[in-house]
Amino acid sequence: MTQTQHPPRAQVRMGENQYGKADVRLFKVFRDEPRHEIKDVWVRALMTGDFDAAHVAGDNTDLIATDTVRNTIYALAKDQLTTSVEEFGKALIRHFVSAGPKVTGGSVHFTEHTWGRMLSGGQEHDHAFVRQMPKHTAWVEGDGQTFKVTSGIDELYVLKTTNSGWEGYLKEQYTSLPETNDRILATVVTAKWEYAAESCDYEDVWQRVMNALMDKFPDHYSPSVQNLLFVFGEEVLTRCPEISRIHFSFPNRHHIPYNLERYGVDNPNTIFHADAEPFGLIEGWVERA
Amino acid sequence: MTQTQHPPRAQVRMGENQYGKADVRLFKVFRDEPRHEIKDVWVRALMTGDFDAAHVAGDNTDLIATDTVRNTIYALAKDQLTTSVEEFGKALIRHFVSAGPKVTGGSVHFTEHTWGRMLSGGQEHDHAFVRQMPKHTAWVEGDGQTFKVTSGIDELYVLKTTNSGWEGYLKEQYTSLPETNDRILATVVTAKWEYAAESCDYEDVWQRVMNALMDKFPDHYSPSVQNLLFVFGEEVLTRCPEISRIHFSFPNRHHIPYNLERYGVDNPNTIFHADAEPFGLIEGWVERA
Amino acid sequence: MTQTQHPPRAQVRMGENQYGKADVRLFKVFRDEPRHEIKDVWVRALMTGDFDAAHVAGDNTDLIATDTVRNTIYALAKDQLTTSVEEFGKALIRHFVSAGPKVTGGSVHFTEHTWGRMLSGGQEHDHAFVRQMPKHTAWVEGDGQTFKVTSGIDELYVLKTTNSGWEGYLKEQYTSLPETNDRILATVVTAKWEYAAESCDYEDVWQRVMNALMDKFPDHYSPSVQNLLFVFGEEVLTRCPEISRIHFSFPNRHHIPYNLERYGVDNPNTIFHADAEPFGLIEGWVERA
Amino acid sequence: MTQTQHPPRAQVRMGENQYGKADVRLFKVFRDEPRHEIKDVWVRALMTGDFDAAHVAGDNTDLIATDTVRNTIYALAKDQLTTSVEEFGKALIRHFVSAGPKVTGGSVHFTEHTWGRMLSGGQEHDHAFVRQMPKHTAWVEGDGQTFKVTSGIDELYVLKTTNSGWEGYLKEQYTSLPETNDRILATVVTAKWEYAAESCDYEDVWQRVMNALMDKFPDHYSPSVQNLLFVFGEEVLTRCPEISRIHFSFPNRHHIPYNLERYGVDNPNTIFHADAEPFGLIEGWVERA
Repeated sequence: MTQTQHPPRAQVRMGENQYGKADVRLFKVFRDEPRHEIKDVWVRALMTGDFDAAHVAGDNTDLIATDTVRNTIYALAKDQLTTSVEEFGKALIRHFVSAGPKVTGGSVHFTEHTWGRMLSGGQEHDHAFVRQMPKHTAWVEGDGQTFKVTSGIDELYVLKTTNSGWEGYLKEQYTSLPETNDRILATVVTAKWEYAAESCDYEDVWQRVMNALMDKFPDHYSPSVQNLLFVFGEEVLTRCPEISRIHFSFPNRHHIPYNLERYGVDNPNTIFHADAEPFGLIEGWVERA
Repeated sequence: MTQTQHPPRAQVRMGENQYGKADVRLFKVFRDEPRHEIKDVWVRALMTGDFDAAHVAGDNTDLIATDTVRNTIYALAKDQLTTSVEEFGKALIRHFVSAGPKVTGGSVHFTEHTWGRMLSGGQEHDHAFVRQMPKHTAWVEGDGQTFKVTSGIDELYVLKTTNSGWEGYLKEQYTSLPETNDRILATVVTAKWEYAAESCDYEDVWQRVMNALMDKFPDHYSPSVQNLLFVFGEEVLTRCPEISRIHFSFPNRHHIPYNLERYGVDNPNTIFHADAEPFGLIEGWVERA
Repeated sequence: MTQTQHPPRAQVRMGENQYGKADVRLFKVFRDEPRHEIKDVWVRALMTGDFDAAHVAGDNTDLIATDTVRNTIYALAKDQLTTSVEEFGKALIRHFVSAGPKVTGGSVHFTEHTWGRMLSGGQEHDHAFVRQMPKHTAWVEGDGQTFKVTSGIDELYVLKTTNSGWEGYLKEQYTSLPETNDRILATVVTAKWEYAAESCDYEDVWQRVMNALMDKFPDHYSPSVQNLLFVFGEEVLTRCPEISRIHFSFPNRHHIPYNLERYGVDNPNTIFHADAEPFGLIEGWVERA
Repeated sequence: MTQTQHPPRAQVRMGENQYGKADVRLFKVFRDEPRHEIKDVWVRALMTGDFDAAHVAGDNTDLIATDTVRNTIYALAKDQLTTSVEEFGKALIRHFVSAGPKVTGGSVHFTEHTWGRMLSGGQEHDHAFVRQMPKHTAWVEGDGQTFKVTSGIDELYVLKTTNSGWEGYLKEQYTSLPETNDRILATVVTAKWEYAAESCDYEDVWQRVMNALMDKFPDHYSPSVQNLLFVFGEEVLTRCPEISRIHFSFPNRHHIPYNLERYGVDNPNTIFHADAEPFGLIEGWVERA
């Protein structure tokens, strides 16, 4: 054993900590009406509080098992997951604060998969669905009394083939990129936003944010991803008074014109290499002034 | 060195072999009309032939560099990728057989990402797009004169909340699953099909297969994934005379009713655990009789 | 419904088909001795036979449920997974052929994760382990009497910084790559091999293949990935008389010297871009002559 | 267009924001000596500052292009990446603050892949390497004068087959998990730590943290993952005076004894289902008291 060579034990203590269950895959069917509704959600539910006894002394007396956290998510979903995941997150935190003797708060994260109704014979079907790409994300934190809710969009991959450029930037020692006033603009939208009010119709807001992005993305010449971020933010804050500020994280999915001229083939912005890496990354908040 | 302990060199030779470039990310814009069209394709192009000199003797004289394969894919896409990836695959193979002194054939695989037009202000946009989940796959093999084409669908995730069951199966020593006549049926469709004709409108066929799946999936009680496979196959072969046979690979994405009764909560087919693994896997060809 | 527009039902039948359970995550501890041994395996077990009744008529009478397949894998592992996964695969197929009235054969695939003993205080520990990257893969097919066994290596990522080149290849219309006699050679080995004998010490063979690759990879100047494939094959077939032939699939993980000269910085084979895509792909069998 | 129905533009402004390049795959060879050394690093370099003109007005005048960021990473690596990625991060931030008229700070993240020397003929090879699983992560933030450095370990997958339990926890309404004093403990270590000093030998510290984890993981009975977290933290802070505090994020990779008794097969802690999801998640800081 090498331990005998070590200095005396350091004096240490627990800092911030949390625990719970992650990747709980909850699926709920609302089947009271012939037209079924579904919720397909991955849940991560973590608890905060004074868990020093377990950490320092190995005393589990007051710990809720993470297996119990899982059971609870499914059990409460029965009656409490009726509208948005955001409201369900509040219910979960209320429960854990009340059930755990040492629990003083919680944070719950949701990844809700979106499904469209299947078009069968040209009609939207009552109980058949097709998975869509974009996801509805949500974070709920709180002490059981008050909550901070953040909602988001993930994996919304959008692209326009023109009406975008990148010009007039700084030229310095390591700059070699040529300017262009006609490029492909492609990004995978990751957005999250905070609310001005304590509660609202979270699902309606989510849909209005989606609509805002879809309407604004193609309707103007885009001089940079930075500008797109601002234009998106301004539009969302205009359409959604419930939102106090919004953050976007935009990978710039570069589509690089392939150099065919060297082989005697012209390439009038037609043939591109869709580069996977590296990618530009542009991130920021747009807030109310 | 340990080699001196080894037996004499084994007498060996090259068996079947192929090489080329994989994960070539080709993006093409058709911009002659105001309403742009796009092709977003990942290409793998491999060549077969007599490459013994390179393998055995390290003589690269007759080898087309894989970097050249990449360049060629982009260069030929300019004029030859005008309709389907299937036809483009034939053009690529024709080229490599003609360009490589030792190349006698090729096989090309495509993963074509599907995009929908963005709905902006309620209208389909001319040059803005949103990525969809399902993919159009294709394999083209041949010697430059004749070709075998296989097309497919990938990552089409479908689910129905009722009208499916699993009953009457064999009960034996290790059987513990309860029967049910009302379960969730969920799968990610991976399909591929072969053609009766040498050539056809591959994109139209692909769309008809998609429609066949969407129309049939929910229109009947499904006693098993096996039966769904047959029903799908029959429908596709009925609607698509161009197709000689079709293969499906269906993961059974189990949605397991969560046992809430042990906590005093009833669960009338409402709360499910969407299990990630393991999964049932059902695969097979449906052919013309 | 659009079906009324369709032609009469096509006459169809089932072709080749199979089903079973995939991604079964089996972990076994051998704890009879203080020095524990472990097996960490993902299993896919599929059955073939006459399953027409289920497919065509929805009659499940003779079907083993895939849930039963899962249970069986765990149950048989207790007594039958004692040496290699290859032998365990034979036991599983024997069982399914005997248990299923319509089962005539099976195919089982294993991905065995490799673990090293943890070095604690400089000693290999008896019951603590660290996950390694390479995997031991295996395929077993058969009718319960005779079997075809294939074994393999996956995710073995190797690299050498010199003693490799790419020169003398064909120059044609779309060739732009410069030649080099000093490049980085990097690949992720995916190998599989077939056996001359009906049975052998599969784990010992696997280790000898690994050693052959490690000894040969750096011991010579490599003119191409093709030549490396042949050199590897010859060495393995020399050291392992049990193996009849071996297949390698080599992605060429390109490390491209970054053009720093344009910024006045020299780059004597020092700074590289480790390109993720596209990649060269070189595949082939080496067989006994 | 639906915009005419919208309320007047919201009054908005940019909040916190940053941009740069991500997933830059840098590979450096140190080849001055016959025994080569390598650095294999994925870099994300972001800049902060006053970028309002670009966001709000589309004026790119003072923006460093993200393509320039990429070029710079490769160019500076030539002379500045000589020891640790942590020191290289400081050099990058110093450069961007000096090169960008509006840049006031930066944050750089590294994922350094670890490689072991290949054992060929029983000897560590001079220029051949095998990829290992654990990664060295690092975050450097600063204004060009002072820096905050955080280092970490990722993808270190460890497991012990005994000497771990989970007992004495809270039993409440939704608790169904049985207690055990002999379970498998498995986790993928994600650690990060902060430093007390402005600079130190980061690579030596990283190795000492690794050794601390390896020595402590198996040397005691573990009553919970929480306790393991504390034991690890105490050991690291004892061995590494340079570290001020350390954070661990531990997924509890559950290995669940498979219920074979129902089939008449005993299972004395031998056969387990290695469950992929959900997983317990235990996170926390251990600090100096």
